[in-house]
Amino acid sequence: MPKTEFYYFPIKGLGEQIRLLLAYGGEDWNDNRVTPEDWPNFKPKTPFGQMPVLEVDGKQRAQSMAISRYLGRKHGLAGATIEEDFLIDQSVEFLNDIRAKAAQVQYEPDEALKAKKHEDFSKNVYPTLLAKLDQILEENNGHLALGKLTWADFVFAGIYQYLKVMLQSPDLDSKFPRFKKLEQTVYSIPKVKAFADAAPKCDI
Amino acid sequence: MPKTEFYYFPIKGLGEQIRLLLAYGGEDWNDNRVTPEDWPNFKPKTPFGQMPVLEVDGKQRAQSMAISRYLGRKHGLAGATIEEDFLIDQSVEFLNDIRAKAAQVQYEPDEALKAKKHEDFSKNVYPTLLAKLDQILEENNGHLALGKLTWADFVFAGIYQYLKVMLQSPDLDSKFPRFKKLEQTVYSIPKVKAFADAAPKCDI
Ligand SMILES: N[C@@H](CCC(=O)N[C@@H](CS)C(=O)NCC(=O)O)C(=O)O
Ligand SMILES: N[C@@H](CCC(=O)N[C@@H](CS)C(=O)NCC(=O)O)C(=O)O
Repeated sequence: MPKTEFYYFPIKGLGEQIRLLLAYGGEDWNDNRVTPEDWPNFKPKTPFGQMPVLEVDGKQRAQSMAISRYLGRKHGLAGATIEEDFLIDQSVEFLNDIRAKAAQVQYEPDEALKAKKHEDFSKNVYPTLLAKLDQILEENNGHLALGKLTWADFVFAGIYQYLKVMLQSPDLDSKFPRFKKLEQTVYSIPKVKAFADAAPKCDI
Repeated sequence: MPKTEFYYFPIKGLGEQIRLLLAYGGEDWNDNRVTPEDWPNFKPKTPFGQMPVLEVDGKQRAQSMAISRYLGRKHGLAGATIEEDFLIDQSVEFLNDIRAKAAQVQYEPDEALKAKKHEDFSKNVYPTLLAKLDQILEENNGHLALGKLTWADFVFAGIYQYLKVMLQSPDLDSKFPRFKKLEQTVYSIPKVKAFADAAPKCDI
C-alpha cells in the first residue's frame, strides 16, 4: 500500500503541480481524484475544508504552494542557499499574481461584467504581466529561476493549460513560444511523462 | 549609508510584515514610504511594477511573501527541517486565503454588491475561517506554527489591523483574544517595539 495519498478534484487546477512533483520524485503514491459528489463527505475531514490534500503516513498536509515547495525541496528541485530559494519563491508568487488576476475574470458570475473585465484586463493588465513572465524565462534559460529546472517550473507546467483557458487566449503558445516550451520541458521528463500519459486527460 | 532600502506605500498593507522582520533582524535599513504622487516615477524601476520592494546592495527583491520567508530564514525564524518549514508555509498560505477573501469584499467597487458580499461572507465564510485560525493558535501555543515564534507570526502581526478593517469586525479582538495576543507578542519584542513606536501610525 502506498504511503502517500494525494487528494484533489479530477482537474488540474491547484493540484496538477503536486501530481507532477510526486511523479518526478518517484514516490509510491495514489492519485485520488475526488468527484464533486464525494466531496461533501471528505471536506470535513480535511485540514481547511479544501483540497489539494497530501497524506503521508496518515498525516495530512494542505495548501498547494506549501506542499509544492516542500516536495521541491525534498526532491532536489530547490535552491542551494536562501537567496536562491528566494528567487524561486519570487517567481512562484508572481505566477500566482497572474493566476489570481485571470481568476477574477474566470470566476465572475455576472456574464456582462465578466466580458467587461476580460476586455479591460486583456488591454491593460495581461500584456505587461505576460511580457514580464516571458522576460523571466528569457533571462533564466527558459526556466522560472536560477537558469535551471526548479519546482517553480512544475508549478508553471501544472497551471499553464488552465491559465490559457482563464486568459481566454488559445494562441498563447504561439505568442509566447517560451511558455509552451517550458511546459513541454517538464512534461517530457521521463517519470513525469509516464505519469501524464497514464493519467486521465483534462485541460483545466 | 544603510545597505538595505525598503520601499512601500505609507500603509501597513503587504509591507508591514517585512518592516517588522527587518526591525527584528536588527538590520541597518531605510523605511522608504513612497507616496501615491511619487509612485508613477518609481513603478517602472521595480521588478514587477509593484511594491513592496527590498533593495540590498543595489539588488532589488520583490513579492511580499517571498521576501518575508527569506528574512525569516535569515534571522532564525524558520523551521529546522523542511517538514517544519512546510508547517510555517501552510499557515501563511491559509492566512493569505483569509486575506484574499476579505479583499474580495474590500476592493469591490460597487457599493451595493460590496454590502451583499460582506453579508454573505460574514455568515457563510468568515466564521469557519476565523475559527480554524483560532484553533491553529490554540494548538500552537498562541503561535501560527511549531508552537513557537516564527516568521508566520510576523505576517500575522503585519496584516492583523488591516484584516480587522476588511472583515469590518472591530470586535475581533474580543471575539478571538488569541489574535490580539499574537499581534502583541510580536509588537512587544523590544527591537520591533522600538521600530513601531518610532514609525508613522497607520491602521491599514
Ligand atoms: N490556498 C489553497 C486553496 C485551495 C482551494 O481553493 N481549493 C478549492 C479547489 S481549487 C476547493 O477545495 N474547493 C472546494 C470547497 O471549498 O469546498 C491552496 O492553494 O491549496
Ligand atoms: N504579490 C505581490 C503583490 C504586490 C501588490 O499588489 N502591490 C500593490 C500594493 S499592495 C501595488 O504595488 N500597487 C500599485 C500598482 O500596481 O501600481 C506581493 O505580495 O508583493
